[in-house]
Amino acid sequence: MDSARLPQFGDQTDEIVQRFRVDYSYPVAFTADTFSPSNDLLAKYCAVEPGRHVSVMPIIDSGVAANHPQLISSIEAYFDSSQITLVPAMVVPGGEACKNAPELVDQVMETVAQFAIDRHSYIIAIGGGAVLDFAGFAAAIAHRGIRLIRMPTTVLAQNDAGVGVKNAVNAVGRKNFVGTFAPPHAVINDSQFLATLCDRDLRSGLAETVKVALIKDKSLFERIFAMREPLARFADEAMDFAIREGARLHLQHIGTSGDPFERGSARPLDFGHWSAHKIEQLSGYALRHGEAVAAGILLDSIYSHLLGSLDDKELSQIVNLYFSLGFELPVNLLNQLDVVGALE
Amino acid sequence: MDSARLPQFGDQTDEIVQRFRVDYSYPVAFTADTFSPSNDLLAKYCAVEPGRHVSVMPIIDSGVAANHPQLISSIEAYFDSSQITLVPAMVVPGGEACKNAPELVDQVMETVAQFAIDRHSYIIAIGGGAVLDFAGFAAAIAHRGIRLIRMPTTVLAQNDAGVGVKNAVNAVGRKNFVGTFAPPHAVINDSQFLATLCDRDLRSGLAETVKVALIKDKSLFERIFAMREPLARFADEAMDFAIREGARLHLQHIGTSGDPFERGSARPLDFGHWSAHKIEQLSGYALRHGEAVAAGILLDSIYSHLLGSLDDKELSQIVNLYFSLGFELPVNLLNQLDVVGALE
Repeated sequence: MDSARLPQFGDQTDEIVQRFRVDYSYPVAFTADTFSPSNDLLAKYCAVEPGRHVSVMPIIDSGVAANHPQLISSIEAYFDSSQITLVPAMVVPGGEACKNAPELVDQVMETVAQFAIDRHSYIIAIGGGAVLDFAGFAAAIAHRGIRLIRMPTTVLAQNDAGVGVKNAVNAVGRKNFVGTFAPPHAVINDSQFLATLCDRDLRSGLAETVKVALIKDKSLFERIFAMREPLARFADEAMDFAIREGARLHLQHIGTSGDPFERGSARPLDFGHWSAHKIEQLSGYALRHGEAVAAGILLDSIYSHLLGSLDDKELSQIVNLYFSLGFELPVNLLNQLDVVGALE
Repeated sequence: MDSARLPQFGDQTDEIVQRFRVDYSYPVAFTADTFSPSNDLLAKYCAVEPGRHVSVMPIIDSGVAANHPQLISSIEAYFDSSQITLVPAMVVPGGEACKNAPELVDQVMETVAQFAIDRHSYIIAIGGGAVLDFAGFAAAIAHRGIRLIRMPTTVLAQNDAGVGVKNAVNAVGRKNFVGTFAPPHAVINDSQFLATLCDRDLRSGLAETVKVALIKDKSLFERIFAMREPLARFADEAMDFAIREGARLHLQHIGTSGDPFERGSARPLDFGHWSAHKIEQLSGYALRHGEAVAAGILLDSIYSHLLGSLDDKELSQIVNLYFSLGFELPVNLLNQLDVVGALE
């Protein structure tokens, strides 16, 4: 066509500025025995709007399924008399394995298509941080977002990543390369799942609470420090306190940072983070994420002390807490860190 | 570990309700010759924060690249003297082909990794609605969101999908099965790209403006109706008006609906939509999306008239406009529609 017939926006470049605001809200619940018939929490979160068909698809960490052999049948029983269609549970390998398997994302898509799971239905992700990341990503992209209910099964997931807004899988050989920011529909922290964790997992989960307390709430750090003896033996009240407070502060950080989806540059929870990632990599992921975070806190605290921003007493408390909780110093790994380069 | 050591959340099920709000804002600009050295619009949108390295990766519709052989060199020249690193352009097949090729999403991820494109860098998507959908999805999931600048090159994309908040690719044999809601960083509607469109594409693009006017702005419909003669010959002022007003109303709908990410049930722009999708499918996608939308409007208007919610004059104007603009009636396809079933 000839140009005489064209709209000529360029005669006057101008703009419409589109603005809108989205309110996000989700509950993070603390409970036990979610799938007991007498616990109506999950039923409340899977509310069925009148006239609408709702499905629930569980995605379960293989480690959790193995440690809780009654889990799937108790889920079936829970939904048996409800209006909800329960889709057969998908059991996926725990840890990074599920995040390295794009065919598992495809498998979720096929199930979503096969059972006509729509945007008003629910995926319930039950597992450690990696499975929550994987299932969260699949739920976020299917139909541009199926409602996700997260049931974190580790201390670390219950007080940190599981209550947050991120998901991811690995791609092109890099961790968390592909993902979205997608607030869950609800989070259920069920203490029952902690019963089968080994001491190492219970301990490493505490690192994120210590970190967030150091950054955001000095008085909480003091209380954690005072509780170091019952925490070291995973006493129930102390663990309950540490998990709830860690989750609360993590949620507060996301909710009040002004940038929950990290679109700007601010990442104020990065204390200990650079070192932690390096230490985790150097260990070939033999260290737990929480153990690497703990070591990262220790390392960054020593730097902070050298730079004058942490006084003797504070450093001493952190070192004391580290060893009181039973963390070991990964000396070989720390020697490999380019500390001088990092400081610069 | 024994249960005596466990936190017992269940003793008292309680909730923290996480609430936060995110403000979204992006410009939709109307211009021409974006890559002319004298046009500083794109440079403004690709602002470089001090001390930060920024890359720009163009993803270009193969049809657009073929029709605009100077495009890539003009992009190179535009960024040549800037601080920005221009990553080699990726040319992808236009239309549904790019949305049916998961390996192209992988290719974007590889390029993002190879050139260390980060969350403060830009993907510029230049093409029709399908390429914008594809590139938007890839940009949304890489690093949980690389900034996306959309340059829609068709009338339909400039006044409708290109200014909105959705992206998608096809999966498990279904259209738009996988995607996200992700507002762009900016949209540039460049009239230059309309110069190479055939009459059929120019015409079909008008359908969305007619649709949104019918639903949201009766006085705009009257003005479009009054302009049907210059619109039928794609006169520049009339086309400019129809595109800007379509974009404006579409943005207004997203911005004021209260539910821009479609989390609830309301989809008030669905008038004509069900029929349009059916008609498009029945034609084996031989019909343009806009042609199917136009036919869908006609069909739904006839239903509305039968049901008494559209009067004689309104129906007569819609039918008149349909044929004045040069749309043809896809009689064979309409006969195959299950109109009775749909009405029920």
